[in-house]
Amino acid sequence: VVESWSFLDTVESNFRPLVVIELAKGTKEETIEWFTKRIVDKKANGGAQLLIKPLVTENGVENIYLVGATHLRLLLGAETVGLVKECSDNSMRTFTYSSRKTFKDFADDNHNFLTMAECQYIIKHELENLRAKNEKMIPGYPQAKLYPGKSIVRRLLTSGILVQIFPLHDREELKKLRHSWYGQVKVGYQPLDDIRCYFGETIALYFGFLEYFTFALVPMAVIGIPYYVFAWEDYDKYVMFATFNLLWSTVILEVWKRMCAMLTYRWGTLLMKRQFEEPRPGFHGVLGVNPVTGREEPVYSSLKRQLRIYLVSLPFVCLCLYFSLYVMMIYFDLEQWALDYHKENESNFSSLMLYVPSIIYAVVIEIMNRIYRYAAEFLTSWENHRLESSYQNHLILKVLVFNFLNCFASLFYIAFVLFDMKLLRQSLATLLITSQILNQFAESLLPYWLQKRYNRRMKKRMCSQKTDRDLSIAEQINMEKEMGTYLGTFDDYLELFLQFGYVSLFSCVYPLAAVFAVLNNITEIYSDALKMCRVYKRPFAEPTANIGVWQLAFETMSVISVVTNCILIGMSPQVDALFPDSKMDLVLTVALVEHLLLAIKFIMAFVIPDKPRDIQMKLAKLEFESLEALKQQVRAFQMQL
Amino acid sequence: VVESWSFLDTVESNFRPLVVIELAKGTKEETIEWFTKRIVDKKANGGAQLLIKPLVTENGVENIYLVGATHLRLLLGAETVGLVKECSDNSMRTFTYSSRKTFKDFADDNHNFLTMAECQYIIKHELENLRAKNEKMIPGYPQAKLYPGKSIVRRLLTSGILVQIFPLHDREELKKLRHSWYGQVKVGYQPLDDIRCYFGETIALYFGFLEYFTFALVPMAVIGIPYYVFAWEDYDKYVMFATFNLLWSTVILEVWKRMCAMLTYRWGTLLMKRQFEEPRPGFHGVLGVNPVTGREEPVYSSLKRQLRIYLVSLPFVCLCLYFSLYVMMIYFDLEQWALDYHKENESNFSSLMLYVPSIIYAVVIEIMNRIYRYAAEFLTSWENHRLESSYQNHLILKVLVFNFLNCFASLFYIAFVLFDMKLLRQSLATLLITSQILNQFAESLLPYWLQKRYNRRMKKRMCSQKTDRDLSIAEQINMEKEMGTYLGTFDDYLELFLQFGYVSLFSCVYPLAAVFAVLNNITEIYSDALKMCRVYKRPFAEPTANIGVWQLAFETMSVISVVTNCILIGMSPQVDALFPDSKMDLVLTVALVEHLLLAIKFIMAFVIPDKPRDIQMKLAKLEFESLEALKQQVRAFQMQL
Repeated sequence: VVESWSFLDTVESNFRPLVVIELAKGTKEETIEWFTKRIVDKKANGGAQLLIKPLVTENGVENIYLVGATHLRLLLGAETVGLVKECSDNSMRTFTYSSRKTFKDFADDNHNFLTMAECQYIIKHELENLRAKNEKMIPGYPQAKLYPGKSIVRRLLTSGILVQIFPLHDREELKKLRHSWYGQVKVGYQPLDDIRCYFGETIALYFGFLEYFTFALVPMAVIGIPYYVFAWEDYDKYVMFATFNLLWSTVILEVWKRMCAMLTYRWGTLLMKRQFEEPRPGFHGVLGVNPVTGREEPVYSSLKRQLRIYLVSLPFVCLCLYFSLYVMMIYFDLEQWALDYHKENESNFSSLMLYVPSIIYAVVIEIMNRIYRYAAEFLTSWENHRLESSYQNHLILKVLVFNFLNCFASLFYIAFVLFDMKLLRQSLATLLITSQILNQFAESLLPYWLQKRYNRRMKKRMCSQKTDRDLSIAEQINMEKEMGTYLGTFDDYLELFLQFGYVSLFSCVYPLAAVFAVLNNITEIYSDALKMCRVYKRPFAEPTANIGVWQLAFETMSVISVVTNCILIGMSPQVDALFPDSKMDLVLTVALVEHLLLAIKFIMAFVIPDKPRDIQMKLAKLEFESLEALKQQVRAFQMQL
Repeated sequence: VVESWSFLDTVESNFRPLVVIELAKGTKEETIEWFTKRIVDKKANGGAQLLIKPLVTENGVENIYLVGATHLRLLLGAETVGLVKECSDNSMRTFTYSSRKTFKDFADDNHNFLTMAECQYIIKHELENLRAKNEKMIPGYPQAKLYPGKSIVRRLLTSGILVQIFPLHDREELKKLRHSWYGQVKVGYQPLDDIRCYFGETIALYFGFLEYFTFALVPMAVIGIPYYVFAWEDYDKYVMFATFNLLWSTVILEVWKRMCAMLTYRWGTLLMKRQFEEPRPGFHGVLGVNPVTGREEPVYSSLKRQLRIYLVSLPFVCLCLYFSLYVMMIYFDLEQWALDYHKENESNFSSLMLYVPSIIYAVVIEIMNRIYRYAAEFLTSWENHRLESSYQNHLILKVLVFNFLNCFASLFYIAFVLFDMKLLRQSLATLLITSQILNQFAESLLPYWLQKRYNRRMKKRMCSQKTDRDLSIAEQINMEKEMGTYLGTFDDYLELFLQFGYVSLFSCVYPLAAVFAVLNNITEIYSDALKMCRVYKRPFAEPTANIGVWQLAFETMSVISVVTNCILIGMSPQVDALFPDSKMDLVLTVALVEHLLLAIKFIMAFVIPDKPRDIQMKLAKLEFESLEALKQQVRAFQMQL
């Protein structure tokens, strides 16, 4: 067995493990040899030109390999993935090896020019772009077919030979990050730049959004508190509150776009060119020619996919929605029963019982959401989308529609069919608070506790009482490879989205919602931070320039909330009293106000620029420079004629 | 006096005049010498490297110059402006001189590879990009200041030395185009590709939109006719008609985007890179440094501009709007007077008199629109916008808001304040038809008649009875330079926009509007074609990829029309009769339907892709190729290390 390979003239001691590859137990020798050879092979020979080293533990060689790369290789890789870094003149530019000297903090011996997350992203990119040449199959596994240009790693993953690839934690860095992030109790901003350096832009942007959103809710919460303290039940005060909320929610979403542009400009991702999207790992089909790339790759008929979507997925989603409404009706029966019980035996216990149906319903909603989530993932995966982005869009659409209905249908029913404002307030409060508690528990505390217990068991088994710091690399890897995998920011954004719904849709009947949302978000920051640092494997960094489809989702919610709030206000007795003669005038006035508010919203969204002026200027400057460079090139060529 | 200059080894006989430059009478000799020298000078010396020849007539040298260029120069210019042409493999690619052999129909001796419009666009671009070097002023005119990088042509224009620059007509081509466009009476499509070759993309796209829009209105017109023939006055039929209209108007606007992408892909402008925008000619300020380009150029404080906009323009626009409403009230007085008159003297004459106020009002509206247009142009120009696009946006916004109110305020008033459906129908019909007749007359027939008279006079003065074909170049130029200048597609789109408003806003009370719109548009195509070919100077071609802000304007109109039509239907007696018990239910139902329709509209706009699938594929292919090329470049460079 080959024990270690190296690239160029690297000294063994220089090897810094960045990424871990775990192969299945019992993987054939010839496969390992072929795979590792391809990884270390020169680029010119179609290899990835990386460094790889098997992990040797007391139990001998396990099928775990450490991947690293030389500094030079990483710099070249940074150019390949199109990394954008800061130059000495503070402008952001796409990194190229030939212009490396112009970049800030660059020195040939400064190995910290690229952050560890960036290095790991580069290695992941290089591994995923390691493509089959003329191999018809993976050596040793005739059923794992290959064709020229097929990503080897993806095929190894889908055929189960490769168990997982994950980036290593950096214990030192992580400790520092933990300390500055949630180690001390302090009021202040999160260290977003450090989070970005360690976890990458997607996760840092989520925490940035969470923080921004929490700050943005504070004014709503502050205005909401006196309603509780002074027991203001006047609807004219609610009207003011709701109007403020509606305009405020538009403003914060627009301002977030600008904040986001500022952050991602600083991080370089705003300028990064989109990479060409490869088929997603799960995609399968018969071998054909891709009309765009001209390459041979699996092709799946769009018609078949459409049939699956419209004949299976759509009816299934509708069925689920129907079921959700059915459950809602059961909840109302329960509610009625609790009310009857309370009327019969007026006692403390019976008045507590009034809350029980809502709590049960909130728990059921959470459970249904989670089950549906799995079903939606299965279905969307079965729809066999070629691109990850298309898969994500279909998944998000399915999940959003169901979750929206599942969470808010009962509230809509109470508000606009039963017209019971007291029940609405009580139900809203119970749903909001129960779901927050459940989420905090299920998302962070439970996994943390499980992880902690597992770690203790592991350490006991290793018969050593070392602290984290003294762990050998082998022990560290053995611990990390058993950790859960962070599945992306989807669930975190979804939780915020539903919270935004609770806060904004019926804000005029329950101003305290914003207070609870703020409190929840503050603990959410801590528990999510804990989750990222302690519970899950380190995720690969993913460059991103914005929060994508969630911006649209939040904006849609704020449009719907204009409609609901206008109706609620129109239904209030105080507003009613303003139009003693004619109900018609009331309804027409409400409709007029609603249209005006919507118009103002759209005009505001149109008028507020999506990027702050200085970012616009910087982008214009870069565009101007590249146009000038092109012109110079054309001119220089034409001069030669 | 230098009589002619040439570039490289061009033989005099090869010179093909493309563009005409007219200098003011009495321009100083040294200025002419300097200017022409700069035009013919080598690129390396900062010249435009074009050919120029003075026009010599019987009266001696007039200050008119013909500009041309060698074939090679034009090809290099095509690369500079980033022209996109079709390759031999039917894909569209950016033209470069080095890859010229791969383009369809390219041959070194094929001088028709670039259309005449393209050649003229290239020459315009080169002339406009002829920039001052170290000149502090235009020689001979110390008050016409220059600074390094200032466009010489623009300064010459603003200081009145240069009277005009315009491209020459090609009499042969124009004759062919006229014949295929409107020469024969036939049912069929316009020769859009020929129009594009002759007049450029902006104008061809306008005619494409006009044609598409006319076809799109045909179904509405066809459905509208039976309402007139059978005198259907049932509102339930109107409801169907309005619902169809609302969905149809969304569909046609979405489909137009796709059509537009197909057209502009074929013409290459969809792929053309946006050029860096220079300050517009009228822009002035104190000399400062542009933060984007780093060049010295006039700078004008954004604050001053904002003050001018909000303290002068905005109040002025509001005043105009108020005045327009005041005129509207006078119209209603007139209307009342006519009605009283009719009641007193029931006669044929008096029933004709009923239409008089509407007709007068329609004429007044047209006059007010035109006066306001000049005022808006003056104000926007005085606001001193740096970029043409910003100027255009502010102008369009001002004009659209005023025209919308001016044209439709009376209809809104009649519909939603007076509730007089009969008057609404009559008023709508009169306004629509009168404005169409006025527009046709003022835009095309009047200028055509004036031009014809002028031409006759010219020919008489030249004492020759030659046909158009035999005209010498001197006579042709003398005739063309006196023709009016086509000021762009703004007024033409505006007319269509207002027509769309008449058709869609109140479609459910007057289904015949679509019929009149179709009839008008058919004659509009002919009269606009006549205008382009006969009345105006040939305009410079302007590459464009879409109809820009007009798409948004039409979409906004179709959203407003959902609201108005829902209200109108809700007010109809038939719908009223469906809710005998409760007016409330009626209003709530109407509001619900309206919201549903709006939601469907937005979802449709979101779901229908903006580009047809095959264009998407072609664009993806090009993007993939350029990414691959970049990758190859990076790889090739990295291999050398």
